[in-house]
Amino acid sequence: MTTVLDGDAVASDIRDSLTDNIDTLTTAGVTPGLATVLMSTDPSSETYVSMKQRDCEEVGINGIHVEIDADAPATELYETIEDLNDDPAVHGILVQLPVPEHVDERRVVRSIDPEKDVDGFHPENVGRLVGGESRFKPCTPHGVQKLLDAAGVDPDGKEVVIVGRSEIVGKPLANLLIQKAPGGNATVTVCHSHTEDLAAKTRTADIVVAAAGVPELIDGTMLREGATVIDVGVNSVDAETEKGYELVGDVDFESAKEKAGVITPVPGGVGPMTRAMLLYNTVKAASAQTGVDVELP
Amino acid sequence: MTTVLDGDAVASDIRDSLTDNIDTLTTAGVTPGLATVLMSTDPSSETYVSMKQRDCEEVGINGIHVEIDADAPATELYETIEDLNDDPAVHGILVQLPVPEHVDERRVVRSIDPEKDVDGFHPENVGRLVGGESRFKPCTPHGVQKLLDAAGVDPDGKEVVIVGRSEIVGKPLANLLIQKAPGGNATVTVCHSHTEDLAAKTRTADIVVAAAGVPELIDGTMLREGATVIDVGVNSVDAETEKGYELVGDVDFESAKEKAGVITPVPGGVGPMTRAMLLYNTVKAASAQTGVDVELP
Repeated sequence: MTTVLDGDAVASDIRDSLTDNIDTLTTAGVTPGLATVLMSTDPSSETYVSMKQRDCEEVGINGIHVEIDADAPATELYETIEDLNDDPAVHGILVQLPVPEHVDERRVVRSIDPEKDVDGFHPENVGRLVGGESRFKPCTPHGVQKLLDAAGVDPDGKEVVIVGRSEIVGKPLANLLIQKAPGGNATVTVCHSHTEDLAAKTRTADIVVAAAGVPELIDGTMLREGATVIDVGVNSVDAETEKGYELVGDVDFESAKEKAGVITPVPGGVGPMTRAMLLYNTVKAASAQTGVDVELP
Repeated sequence: MTTVLDGDAVASDIRDSLTDNIDTLTTAGVTPGLATVLMSTDPSSETYVSMKQRDCEEVGINGIHVEIDADAPATELYETIEDLNDDPAVHGILVQLPVPEHVDERRVVRSIDPEKDVDGFHPENVGRLVGGESRFKPCTPHGVQKLLDAAGVDPDGKEVVIVGRSEIVGKPLANLLIQKAPGGNATVTVCHSHTEDLAAKTRTADIVVAAAGVPELIDGTMLREGATVIDVGVNSVDAETEKGYELVGDVDFESAKEKAGVITPVPGGVGPMTRAMLLYNTVKAASAQTGVDVELP
């Protein structure tokens, strides 16, 4: 019997606990504030940002939205970040990536105050995560860890194969799962485009995390019977739908489901967890910056 | 036919090139300066520091040695670091670890100016390494990469098993070898004390890096025919020698040599590389801080 993990339900539980945390903060006079900065005309970036703002509103986080013309000089973005760094009402800052080509993305990431870096992408925060003393875990890998926990799958001693080595998923997740810490202690292999026999690696894994950005890369023949399969992919592919496309994961769900013990769907798996963990990081940031203690879920 | 890698010879070549770099710097009026700070009465720490100072002298780096009484208040160390951060004659700072228990080691590591952090342990530098834009690669993993290169072993597409997840070897080496970059692109697995069947993992590897700190953990039965074996271990074990002990690696050299295609000895393998890469980082630091260009080996 295969368990299909309900990411929406797990995320909803986390949001409920965060709402309690936010009540505690608000009672103490602190309204957690998340600034989202959009410098793009890309429709999916716009969608992501508006979803994040809606999430904030729902749980009682003060969402501050800044929009910068995509053609504006890069300095406008850098200065906006400086202002938000200095603003005590803003506890978390998220600049929606990618930024336009004339903007130095690395400079953007590094100029966010590490204490407000709720994406967890600042080098100092990446380094802390590797060292086992993370300030903010990046939202997607953190969401994957929470999903595994909710499913009762403890990575300790397990063989985990992560397919993909991105800065936002593959690398931080690998670094999280090898930690000598609860939710870690896994034997982790990172596979990517230069891996010679991907199927041979995934077939030995207790847990496969697909985060390569390649539609339906992992199918049932590549899995061990009973494996846990976490699909991080969100790929838009042409389809005869009303919109002319559909969203598919990095896993071929139908064939993978035949083999997997536990599997996440797309959508409704990792996606809602990523969104919930952004709220988590914002609450954590507000608590750390104000000294008002909360018990995070 | 097994190749026994001569780390002394490879390190000597690197030191020769660095001597040229140092000539360039000196001609431009810059003498690279490395400060070593010792706050310990541990004999091996004392030995390590004096070796580093001797290495500096040999290549023309200005070695500045600061010794702090192991019983002194922690603030004395913190203030020393502040002073060295501010001293323009000091381009690199190395605090010999471990520090006494009453000193906060994390604070020590974080208080070193990242631009002078030639050990590469500051979170910001760890984060940059993960992001593929390292400022200083930690000396031992960097030395391993250089050794592989000198042996003509390209990790690209290879299966690498790293045994050990320390902050100074296992974690940074894994993060280096998965980079989409020359000397990287390997499929990397990190094993450790919670790995359930270590031999099964090492037996599939093209390259095994033993960095667990467990004497002779890896023997020939755990290796694939023709594997490359890099032994990072330096363990002192009781022996009927004059000193009452001997140094052995994490690899059982005799049995491993029968299987391996390429293998490093202990001593004379990774050890001299680690020392050479500290000089490399110091030269790199001096160049970066003064704007005098050098072509690093």
